[in-house]
Amino acid sequence: MKLLEDRIKKDGQVIGTDVLKVDNFLNHQVDPDLMADLGHEFYRRFSNEPITKILTVESSGIAPAIATAMEFHKPLVFARKHKSLTLKDHLYTATVYSFTKKTSNEIAISRKFLSADDNVLIIDDFLANGQAVEGLMDIIAQAGATLSGVGIVIEKTFQKGRKLLDEKHVRVESLARINAFENGQVIFAPED
Amino acid sequence: MKLLEDRIKKDGQVIGTDVLKVDNFLNHQVDPDLMADLGHEFYRRFSNEPITKILTVESSGIAPAIATAMEFHKPLVFARKHKSLTLKDHLYTATVYSFTKKTSNEIAISRKFLSADDNVLIIDDFLANGQAVEGLMDIIAQAGATLSGVGIVIEKTFQKGRKLLDEKHVRVESLARINAFENGQVIFAPED
Repeated sequence: MKLLEDRIKKDGQVIGTDVLKVDNFLNHQVDPDLMADLGHEFYRRFSNEPITKILTVESSGIAPAIATAMEFHKPLVFARKHKSLTLKDHLYTATVYSFTKKTSNEIAISRKFLSADDNVLIIDDFLANGQAVEGLMDIIAQAGATLSGVGIVIEKTFQKGRKLLDEKHVRVESLARINAFENGQVIFAPED
Repeated sequence: MKLLEDRIKKDGQVIGTDVLKVDNFLNHQVDPDLMADLGHEFYRRFSNEPITKILTVESSGIAPAIATAMEFHKPLVFARKHKSLTLKDHLYTATVYSFTKKTSNEIAISRKFLSADDNVLIIDDFLANGQAVEGLMDIIAQAGATLSGVGIVIEKTFQKGRKLLDEKHVRVESLARINAFENGQVIFAPED
């Protein structure tokens, strides 16, 4: 998506060889017009799927996910992160390891909001090692729901997340795909 | 806002004498069409103010706040919660006590995203004791920014938050105002 690539070039900040900071338009300060554009594009790409729910993880996933849910007119459910959970009876839970923070969190979704009747579209801001998406897929499997696809705002192709999802034959649509960071510049993958 | 009151009557769950659970349309599962309606209504009420930024706190505030930001076409900044912060140089921070969880969190916003030139509209899902809004007001004061108003989805008039804000002469617009819970029913304040 050229609009997004241009925005990353203009406002993204490359740190070292594997970190892209986009806190001025995506995950701390958020540009609502861009979110509407991203939601529209995810809808265009997945509108042939019988989506019933949009799923994401708090907090950075919520803005692009609600913009997408607005296009589908279907509910968004966001998983909550917890350090540890004791009462789990009414929850689906999964453990998610963060390579950035080097800690594990449990993510949880109330059983009320996901069932075997659901066709789920996962939306997230980044795909790097794929841990958050795998956690959500675990929860979708527990609910007996169907995963229709995964929509990612920014994918880092050089980390293992995309490969993991391809091996599981999951349909992934990433609006910007980054192959590398070189000399502080972002090298995008060629458009499909 | 009648649409919201009707939704609370239909889908809200009263627990005891002071808790309203709205996790099926506002703060876990989120109805995107309702968010768009709330955003539209906040815009209608505050469009006479020279708003430059929308401010909220992760995570439950993000959905109504981004919907509002979409109407104003101005950036949303969401404060992040931390258990404790060591490096604070580039951040505005405030301490927020949660009466529900009986714990304190620090909330933080990068100094890059708030300045003396900003006119800020705070949006949050609930106003109860007003701790989150007071934390954001503290941060706005640190930045030398101007608070234009506070937009609340659901206010509990019988807790102290609204009184605190009225005493500080802050303009508050709440889309649903709850006076009490009686026998599991929600008693709304009369519309202005």
